[in-house]
Amino acid sequence: MFNDMHKSAGVAYPQGFTAAGVRAGIKKSGNLDVAVIYTEKTAAVAGVFTQNQVAAAPVRVSKIVADTGTAHAIVANAGCANACTGEQGLRDAEKMADIAAKELGCRQDDVIVASTGVIGVALPMDKMEAGIKSAVKELSREGSVNAGNAIITTDTYSKACATEVEIGGKEVRFGAIAKGSGMIMPNMATMLCFITTDADIERKLLQEALSEITEVTFNMLTVDGDTSTNDMVIVLANGAAENPKITSKNADYEKFYATLKEMCTELAKRIAADGEGASKFLTINVHGAETFADAKKIGMAIANSLLVKTAFFGEDPNWGRVICAVGYSGVRISPEKTIIKYGGIPVYAHSVGVKFDENEIKKVMTAHDITIDIELGLGDFDATVWTCDTSFQYVKINADYTT
Amino acid sequence: MFNDMHKSAGVAYPQGFTAAGVRAGIKKSGNLDVAVIYTEKTAAVAGVFTQNQVAAAPVRVSKIVADTGTAHAIVANAGCANACTGEQGLRDAEKMADIAAKELGCRQDDVIVASTGVIGVALPMDKMEAGIKSAVKELSREGSVNAGNAIITTDTYSKACATEVEIGGKEVRFGAIAKGSGMIMPNMATMLCFITTDADIERKLLQEALSEITEVTFNMLTVDGDTSTNDMVIVLANGAAENPKITSKNADYEKFYATLKEMCTELAKRIAADGEGASKFLTINVHGAETFADAKKIGMAIANSLLVKTAFFGEDPNWGRVICAVGYSGVRISPEKTIIKYGGIPVYAHSVGVKFDENEIKKVMTAHDITIDIELGLGDFDATVWTCDTSFQYVKINADYTT
Repeated sequence: MFNDMHKSAGVAYPQGFTAAGVRAGIKKSGNLDVAVIYTEKTAAVAGVFTQNQVAAAPVRVSKIVADTGTAHAIVANAGCANACTGEQGLRDAEKMADIAAKELGCRQDDVIVASTGVIGVALPMDKMEAGIKSAVKELSREGSVNAGNAIITTDTYSKACATEVEIGGKEVRFGAIAKGSGMIMPNMATMLCFITTDADIERKLLQEALSEITEVTFNMLTVDGDTSTNDMVIVLANGAAENPKITSKNADYEKFYATLKEMCTELAKRIAADGEGASKFLTINVHGAETFADAKKIGMAIANSLLVKTAFFGEDPNWGRVICAVGYSGVRISPEKTIIKYGGIPVYAHSVGVKFDENEIKKVMTAHDITIDIELGLGDFDATVWTCDTSFQYVKINADYTT
Repeated sequence: MFNDMHKSAGVAYPQGFTAAGVRAGIKKSGNLDVAVIYTEKTAAVAGVFTQNQVAAAPVRVSKIVADTGTAHAIVANAGCANACTGEQGLRDAEKMADIAAKELGCRQDDVIVASTGVIGVALPMDKMEAGIKSAVKELSREGSVNAGNAIITTDTYSKACATEVEIGGKEVRFGAIAKGSGMIMPNMATMLCFITTDADIERKLLQEALSEITEVTFNMLTVDGDTSTNDMVIVLANGAAENPKITSKNADYEKFYATLKEMCTELAKRIAADGEGASKFLTINVHGAETFADAKKIGMAIANSLLVKTAFFGEDPNWGRVICAVGYSGVRISPEKTIIKYGGIPVYAHSVGVKFDENEIKKVMTAHDITIDIELGLGDFDATVWTCDTSFQYVKINADYTT
């Protein structure tokens, strides 16, 4: 479903979308740092935004745009978060939208703006203006790779994918670019993710689908437990596929929903796997909780335990740290009923460790992808949380990341 | 107050207490690993225990001892936590108390037991038995240093202190040994701390004082946000000072309380400063919150932010990560009213960064002890949280810590 061709097509895979990424000199590295995504045909827009009270200026501006229900463009930069920048920051975020709107020939409130990078530094607006102008000139159906690279920070690669589904006899396409890496924790504070689709769907349903799906995809991943000030998931749906407009929760909606969910799941997993300094991708399945919230809370307690994450970095099957995290998660559990498995192999059951084959466990622990199952035996609710290990590299990246 | 002489006197500084620490072969390193603290005169006992639901066997056994109200001894080991060890673990913890009781000539339910170290491994009871017997033989007024060293794990040094206060015309002494390092997070899951005093005080008041003081001392420190399965603070008060027995909250009680609190504060700070891999000791003062709980929550959000902790390791005045943590702490704040200071120097005020002298900030950031002040401007409550930075060494210790 998510092959390489699709990946490079990205956000420009759906009909009617173009994209570009350029070097504006905002990143110290000189890498691509300004992205524009555009649809001439008006798109329904849905968004989910950080819950951090110290929301950055672009978040505050884009919420207003999302509330209008429609948009034509997304303009985003990396290298500077435009967060904690006060009134000047708000004016700069509005100016980003204004510059793009003028170049594209749309209204300022048709432009979603996003920034990521260092907090507390003002955007260099001269560079930004030149960057946006040059990005708009470069907009093309081949521009998604550059756009994707322009929004990454400490990510080791751009997360991108694309796919299609048949709805009402029409091919409906989806594309996405996303960035993650550090300051990654649920409640949509997590990253930037821009999704395009040529589906024709009512705005209210689009927002409902995105909000629901975010809860079980992006909000189930954590890298370091930190909730950033900047991040957002945006979907633009421009209707260019000419499917019968989705206006109720019918079979077409179900198909749309399933495809969007599959895409968000894939991106969430990739963001976790590419967490700062990650050498392991960890999938934590919590089974048999009394509620989904309980299952998630336990999964997150494990996923955010530094002791668990450093043990996986060390390839050490130290399940004591996992049951310890389960025990302090805040969810009432029964140690006697609890079972923990690493790669399907029981390591703890009913209050005590289980003898396991050292070689079998070694195979599990030395692999890149590791699954941890926690069976609580208390109820019918499950949750899956994705994370990565914590390595020397994480500390290095974050001790050196410049202010 | 806490000089070196006092430190070496430790738990055997108060009249009537002896201590010992021996090598029993439980630690792989071959270092001291079994400690005994003893008072022939019956002591009132108070205890605070881990809130982790997966409480270790010794915690479950010692809670019962503490509930009897009196005790004669503490027997503790490092190298094996006797946690997640099922029924066998409970029997082993009881056996530890039983062996010590027989050697000391007291009852089994007069003996507090404590273990720290790897989770999920059964205690080697033959080594334990020999160790306890040899420790009891070595009990002396000079034994606190060895006892202190016998309970440490990845600590770089044993935390010990002693002091005295005049109560009702008598000199009342206090002594303590403590261990911390990893899996350090509030709600008394934090560590082992054994405090002795020759004060004569009613058991109920002793417990009340300890519980209250724990809230503002040990429960205000965090190293890595992990709440361990094992840890406890125990106070034994044997009355050997012959002060007028403290049975109400009179001036004597206030003196006793103030001295115990000063001691616990000192130990909490030392445990934070000696957190695993720590290169910095961070004091986070939150001022002007609407409640103490709010102030603590904000302090803990900052203290547990990996991004904050790695920035301090890198000596980087990245206040963006601090305000970010304040923003996601779960406490409603006003970014416009918030002020952040590093070493007394404002770096963020009223939604934006404050220009500061680079040299002055460098002096603050390169020091070992750093104070961060957060002024919320919302109310009259303050809280202080202690923590350390997160270094390469933390990851190394915890990737290598063997199971």
